[in-house]
Amino acid sequence: MYYFDHSATTPADPEVIRVMAEAMEQYPGNPSSAHRAGKAARKALLEARNRVAVLLGAEPGDWDHRGEIVFTGSGTESDNLAILGCARARAGRGRHLITSTIEHHAVLHAFRQLETEGFLVQYLEPDENGIVSLEALRASLRPDTTLVSIMMANNETGALQPVREMARLARENGSLFHTDAVQAAGKIPLDVRDLGVDLLSISAHKFYGPRGTGALYVRKGTDILPVQYGGGQEEDLRPGTENLAGILGLATALEKAVRLIPEEMPRQDSLIRLLEDRLLDKIPHIRINGHRDHRVPGILNFSVEFVEGEAFLMHLDLAGIQASSGSACTTGSSEPSHVLTSMGLNARLAQSSVRISIGKGTGREDIAYLVEKVPAIVDRLRNISPLYRAWLRENPNG
Amino acid sequence: MYYFDHSATTPADPEVIRVMAEAMEQYPGNPSSAHRAGKAARKALLEARNRVAVLLGAEPGDWDHRGEIVFTGSGTESDNLAILGCARARAGRGRHLITSTIEHHAVLHAFRQLETEGFLVQYLEPDENGIVSLEALRASLRPDTTLVSIMMANNETGALQPVREMARLARENGSLFHTDAVQAAGKIPLDVRDLGVDLLSISAHKFYGPRGTGALYVRKGTDILPVQYGGGQEEDLRPGTENLAGILGLATALEKAVRLIPEEMPRQDSLIRLLEDRLLDKIPHIRINGHRDHRVPGILNFSVEFVEGEAFLMHLDLAGIQASSGSACTTGSSEPSHVLTSMGLNARLAQSSVRISIGKGTGREDIAYLVEKVPAIVDRLRNISPLYRAWLRENPNG
Repeated sequence: MYYFDHSATTPADPEVIRVMAEAMEQYPGNPSSAHRAGKAARKALLEARNRVAVLLGAEPGDWDHRGEIVFTGSGTESDNLAILGCARARAGRGRHLITSTIEHHAVLHAFRQLETEGFLVQYLEPDENGIVSLEALRASLRPDTTLVSIMMANNETGALQPVREMARLARENGSLFHTDAVQAAGKIPLDVRDLGVDLLSISAHKFYGPRGTGALYVRKGTDILPVQYGGGQEEDLRPGTENLAGILGLATALEKAVRLIPEEMPRQDSLIRLLEDRLLDKIPHIRINGHRDHRVPGILNFSVEFVEGEAFLMHLDLAGIQASSGSACTTGSSEPSHVLTSMGLNARLAQSSVRISIGKGTGREDIAYLVEKVPAIVDRLRNISPLYRAWLRENPNG
Repeated sequence: MYYFDHSATTPADPEVIRVMAEAMEQYPGNPSSAHRAGKAARKALLEARNRVAVLLGAEPGDWDHRGEIVFTGSGTESDNLAILGCARARAGRGRHLITSTIEHHAVLHAFRQLETEGFLVQYLEPDENGIVSLEALRASLRPDTTLVSIMMANNETGALQPVREMARLARENGSLFHTDAVQAAGKIPLDVRDLGVDLLSISAHKFYGPRGTGALYVRKGTDILPVQYGGGQEEDLRPGTENLAGILGLATALEKAVRLIPEEMPRQDSLIRLLEDRLLDKIPHIRINGHRDHRVPGILNFSVEFVEGEAFLMHLDLAGIQASSGSACTTGSSEPSHVLTSMGLNARLAQSSVRISIGKGTGREDIAYLVEKVPAIVDRLRNISPLYRAWLRENPNG
């Protein structure tokens, strides 16, 4: 089996699994309990938090304070907490918000909810390479813009957004800036101070950590309200008994992924470029979606004209190639990708797209297998496509 | 070390840990992905869901539908989803809500939030045994009462509430009924049809499962809105990639706990009664908080006059006895327990309370250790208490 769907989820690292199993044995106490078992758990929680803080360039916490890292139950929850929490907290100052049309649904649907609460949301469109321009943001900022949320790396195309520059524009305007870095964390270096963002979301299972654990960087002093209510955990921002094993798993996974960036970033980038070149070479009428140079390493999205995406994926799966048409969170939906259509692709082309996303376990032999199999599958599907045959009749010389 | 804080959290069962570690290795795919790895994960998710559904008497799901079980990230999230989700969904019909003063903060603070959204919340008071009466509920129901939330078993005293009868009253009134069963699941038999509730919350780490995983039973057809927004998971009610390993851990833990109920319920009950009798026998001026007969097995809450609770717990801890003053979620707060004060205890007595909560690993020898140590510690603390000395002077014959 060849797994090319790392952007949907990554296989958990064996060391992460071990650390989590050990933590479940080692820390029977609740970090909020005052007895020894509780204190041991609280100490482990604090250490994990501070390892994550260091890795992201955030401020550490102490025994009684969470510092700038809030642990959540998922990347989706991190995005929701950032967006709903800040927009609602700042509603007294303004109700204008800015995001982009290519965000993950965890961001887009949070903004849709805010529209029902009386906020005005402006959705910036990307260019044909899937990149939102600084100029678009500059033109949209208003005095009452309280929050801007633009993702770091797009989950379908990998396109990297100019987040550092955007965060500066937002800050100059007095607006908070959030970035969904779920597809970037562990793949490219991230430093919240250097980026100048106020909020940044990550999800452990995208970098070989456990599912059900995310984190949100919240710059000290940021106006934010909770989305859920209960005990005083995470200084009242995210109630519920802390998932210590999951948090230790997240910290271990992030540490390991960040340590591997210097070798994995160029390695995955060159594998993806190799794949891109070979596919472009071997398959006519193929379109690469996203920017060749401004792309998180490890993702290649392409559309194959005259081939229906779902059938394509099914044939890939039969050949042992596990890929996807884009976000796993929207699988089964018959709508074409909102990311690709907002880049200007028509519905047909958007529905003929495939995302290959590789990981640290992907080698040259995996890419070679793709290069061997994909063109043959495309040929087979095109040969039974009435659209392709019609096109061939009209263009006999190809 | 003697662990008497099972109501705060239980040590994870070794089988649960093994199942989770295996799941993390075995299911690298995202349950939303259409390829084989995704389908294998989705199948495992469906099986786990249906095991939980059967254990609670709920309707199973199928490949495309979640049935009546929604997986969440915690008991807190289950409570929030039920309360915020139903109150907001039914706001058009009415804005009157009913709960009790003895609920966990995950319930109480969700209702406080709803008050800021224009809802009117009525808080029922318990009697001196910590039980909310049917009459109180009957007298409070109004035509515009859309939701009632009363816990199954109180987390501080163990007091069991008349949930079945309350649910019937609510239903007759056209109100939805939610119960926070976090402290009851895995300890007493639970059947949602038999109880007649519309919503029921559980949390895995209270029955030897993992932290970071909860579930919410939602009766088919219940009006409910999500609290977080994103992908279409859990049929749009709870977005985010499913924590498959955690969910399998929850299902395994619940299955095991439910299987053990016939032997553990009477065993823990008799251990707690033994402890209660011995403490009443050996320690003068001690008050049992909660109802001796309407109590979830495994919890004993008592107040020791003339002893300050925090110092008491510290001395217990030094003797290797890990107990708590009540909810772990409010540890560190200097406020007396809202549960005990609403039962009529004055602040002093409420602050001199201790909760002993036992589990399947607790044996007679653990209880014997408590019975040996606690009276001596109480004596020592009373001997240095100015209040106690003053009382002795006034009551020379005790």
